[in-house]
Amino acid sequence: MSYNLLKGKKGIIFGALDENSIAWKTAMRVHEEGGQFVLTNAPIAMRMGNIKDLAEKTGAEIIPADATSVEDLDNLVEKAMEILGGKLDFVLHSIGMSVNVRKGNHYTNMNYDYTTKGWDVSAVSFHKTMQSLYKKDAMNEWGSIMALSYIAAQKVFPDYNDMADNKAYLESIARSFGYFFGKEKNVRVNTISQSPTPTTAGTGVKGFDGFIAYADKMSPLGNATGMDCANYIITLFSDLTKRVTLQNLYNDGGFSNMGVSQQVMEAFINGQEE
Amino acid sequence: MSYNLLKGKKGIIFGALDENSIAWKTAMRVHEEGGQFVLTNAPIAMRMGNIKDLAEKTGAEIIPADATSVEDLDNLVEKAMEILGGKLDFVLHSIGMSVNVRKGNHYTNMNYDYTTKGWDVSAVSFHKTMQSLYKKDAMNEWGSIMALSYIAAQKVFPDYNDMADNKAYLESIARSFGYFFGKEKNVRVNTISQSPTPTTAGTGVKGFDGFIAYADKMSPLGNATGMDCANYIITLFSDLTKRVTLQNLYNDGGFSNMGVSQQVMEAFINGQEE
Amino acid sequence: MSYNLLKGKKGIIFGALDENSIAWKTAMRVHEEGGQFVLTNAPIAMRMGNIKDLAEKTGAEIIPADATSVEDLDNLVEKAMEILGGKLDFVLHSIGMSVNVRKGNHYTNMNYDYTTKGWDVSAVSFHKTMQSLYKKDAMNEWGSIMALSYIAAQKVFPDYNDMADNKAYLESIARSFGYFFGKEKNVRVNTISQSPTPTTAGTGVKGFDGFIAYADKMSPLGNATGMDCANYIITLFSDLTKRVTLQNLYNDGGFSNMGVSQQVMEAFINGQEE
Amino acid sequence: MSYNLLKGKKGIIFGALDENSIAWKTAMRVHEEGGQFVLTNAPIAMRMGNIKDLAEKTGAEIIPADATSVEDLDNLVEKAMEILGGKLDFVLHSIGMSVNVRKGNHYTNMNYDYTTKGWDVSAVSFHKTMQSLYKKDAMNEWGSIMALSYIAAQKVFPDYNDMADNKAYLESIARSFGYFFGKEKNVRVNTISQSPTPTTAGTGVKGFDGFIAYADKMSPLGNATGMDCANYIITLFSDLTKRVTLQNLYNDGGFSNMGVSQQVMEAFINGQEE
Repeated sequence: MSYNLLKGKKGIIFGALDENSIAWKTAMRVHEEGGQFVLTNAPIAMRMGNIKDLAEKTGAEIIPADATSVEDLDNLVEKAMEILGGKLDFVLHSIGMSVNVRKGNHYTNMNYDYTTKGWDVSAVSFHKTMQSLYKKDAMNEWGSIMALSYIAAQKVFPDYNDMADNKAYLESIARSFGYFFGKEKNVRVNTISQSPTPTTAGTGVKGFDGFIAYADKMSPLGNATGMDCANYIITLFSDLTKRVTLQNLYNDGGFSNMGVSQQVMEAFINGQEE
Repeated sequence: MSYNLLKGKKGIIFGALDENSIAWKTAMRVHEEGGQFVLTNAPIAMRMGNIKDLAEKTGAEIIPADATSVEDLDNLVEKAMEILGGKLDFVLHSIGMSVNVRKGNHYTNMNYDYTTKGWDVSAVSFHKTMQSLYKKDAMNEWGSIMALSYIAAQKVFPDYNDMADNKAYLESIARSFGYFFGKEKNVRVNTISQSPTPTTAGTGVKGFDGFIAYADKMSPLGNATGMDCANYIITLFSDLTKRVTLQNLYNDGGFSNMGVSQQVMEAFINGQEE
Repeated sequence: MSYNLLKGKKGIIFGALDENSIAWKTAMRVHEEGGQFVLTNAPIAMRMGNIKDLAEKTGAEIIPADATSVEDLDNLVEKAMEILGGKLDFVLHSIGMSVNVRKGNHYTNMNYDYTTKGWDVSAVSFHKTMQSLYKKDAMNEWGSIMALSYIAAQKVFPDYNDMADNKAYLESIARSFGYFFGKEKNVRVNTISQSPTPTTAGTGVKGFDGFIAYADKMSPLGNATGMDCANYIITLFSDLTKRVTLQNLYNDGGFSNMGVSQQVMEAFINGQEE
Repeated sequence: MSYNLLKGKKGIIFGALDENSIAWKTAMRVHEEGGQFVLTNAPIAMRMGNIKDLAEKTGAEIIPADATSVEDLDNLVEKAMEILGGKLDFVLHSIGMSVNVRKGNHYTNMNYDYTTKGWDVSAVSFHKTMQSLYKKDAMNEWGSIMALSYIAAQKVFPDYNDMADNKAYLESIARSFGYFFGKEKNVRVNTISQSPTPTTAGTGVKGFDGFIAYADKMSPLGNATGMDCANYIITLFSDLTKRVTLQNLYNDGGFSNMGVSQQVMEAFINGQEE
């Protein structure tokens, strides 16, 4: 499937770890739609994944960057423009990690150094990225910047821990910075709030399989897949959505507007009767 | 429990059918807090319930009114001011009924005459009530008008049928009319979005018991009771909340901001395994 | 500009009055993207506009239908499938009209017969359309149904009158029916909440020009045009957004998430000083 | 005005700097309503303000605490229970400060050390406070914990800078921690989103006077004052709102649900014409 929706467009894609990553699938789809990009990831993530395969398949160069380092991001933005031969049209921020989750700390028993680290990686990195792009005037007019979020920014999912707070902060950055990027540079900034997706990163969250099933049964169209997300991102990078900005867009089979579905209700009643 | 929060305040309470009604409990609490009021209900509802007991207990007069009739409402407002000896400080609208639900029509197989009737009773009646109050300049400054709503106005609960759409319309009326009532008369208009409550009216909804349990397990503080609602309304009629307006206020043990609770998740997983 | 995004797709487009209509622009863009459709409008609207020109340009047939008539809608759906040779992939509902606005009735002085008529035309017609489509099993899997809404469904715009309440009802229908259409037929249902747009219909609203300017200065990317809306609809009819459903999607240059912009603030301060 | 709404209740009040502070007014009102409390503030804030006057007037003891220090907060919670003779019923968190704002850094030119400091003081301090209360089991059943927020958490106010993101994070903490505090301890956690209030702290924000006027003209009931906020908090500390939790409650004269008011529109048009 290709419509040439992104022909001639250039950008940066963060966070492609392996073929399960949404960023990976997005990179593949952007490539199919005629877009060019550089890939970036944290040095440590690069050792774990196989981003080089992706780079080969999509003709992309890789520029390692720690997304919490302003210096690395400045270097990334400059190199990307050099390699791609000009300003950028799209950027995908797909980065998130909670040290408290990794270490098994309950939300009511946080280590605040871990909290700060997770917040920096998962949320502030989006501000730092945009600040680099903004200061270097690196985005073309009507460009599109996106980050991946999750509905835990609005509603309580107990196991999501401090990632909920990080996503709330991330979405606020999208609005706050989106205002200035819109006003001054005519650039869109949005987040996608995606169904729980069985990526390699997602599997760290406790009880994730049961939760995937719950979200799927709750959603009238079922969970959106990573490929659904990549396709949605394509439309939001394209010229067909030029005035969509400051939004948090749910790609979730309808989950976000459900109170309860018949299937969840039935399972709940069954489960209660035991 | 009494704090004299409503000493000297006068109003109208719609929709007290029997002791399970939120309006009934509110009337009892308003009385305890020193407020005076007239009670009103549709002639047909009055034959079914025992509103006369309530009137005796609270020293209130009853003025029957079909809440879809502008004439009846005009009469109600005039009589209420006559009986209470002046303008009003509070009004509670607690009316709702779907003919499609009563007749067992699925949401995808509506009879539109029924739809119109339910909409008129459940939602437009709130506009008609406020229009009567507004035209007759019947509210004191800093008075408080409230209607009861439900979260189906925002999220899908499949069995709630066209009452969901009616509640969305009702909440919109609260905002739209609340603007003019605020600007011109310094009067508050708000809705309370209450936990599912086992009132006599509520029992008509299909699968209601299972749903009550679901809502209860989802809510960190459990379902709010009718008495909780009455108490909350007292605060919103009082002088302590003078600048709260155009709001839809959730009294629901936290349900409205839950994605999933641990208890619902466990029941769901149990129910799935069968 | 054409990407063949809708190649082979078939549908119905309501509400194209003249070249200023969003529906008109959408029809043009759907045609360019390879989609086929029938056009429909109320008999009276057809006499006022020049829909025949549009039909010629896009190779579409016209089937008149009063969108408040179940009979007309049933006929429309059947004829559309006959003409297009099969089930449908997309439907655009772009209908709205307030009799109270037309007659100059203030929101606090409504004529309730007018209210009912406006509600039926602007909101219930969307339910009737979907009920016809649903009963006749007229939609292909992963089809997309859309209606046009406005942010007055969420926030107060005093001159928007009862259209605010109608849009709230319309969006609720999208969620309520969208659940069943999703679950049973794998069909998406969404609304677009569009910037104020100087269509022929929109010009009836009082103080519309000033409001257009206000919205434009408030929005970091400025008001979305009718063409922007048509382009956004194209993406939501396409296969790239398959799991986006039950959503109200703002196409408004960011207006919906603004508290105040610097430009509005400056004009406000200037205007106050006089 | 006193209703004895808080007779016998005990708590902690953070952030009373001087008589303009919302926390100050709240302390006065809690005292009038029969509640007892300890006051706390950062050592540096205590030197600037005159909290000792407040302590005298309300018979309260002062326990200095840096709200970013877990050690200080642990000490505060223990001392408070000692002084008050038992567990607590209410806590008010009224703390916020952006170093970027103070230093005049534009949102697109942040110093990230300042960002981190402001986030820690304004948002994480609320988590730390609750974690101390939770670990020490310091709250009575049906107690009430509140923090002050602002609508910049949802909508863009360009001059609010990184405080917008901090408030979004704060509100997310209220939901996330509120779930566990509700489930395990039957304790409410909510935020109030208050009109812009001319406190000593607020005056640091650029263009604040114009903005106060804008908010006032936009709100059908005008801006809520600090005293309005204190009164609202009283109701939310009382036993009349036991099942209200995880909510962000607007006390803002209706601002939060306005699209535009007639007065703002008129000033805007005047201001544009020049």
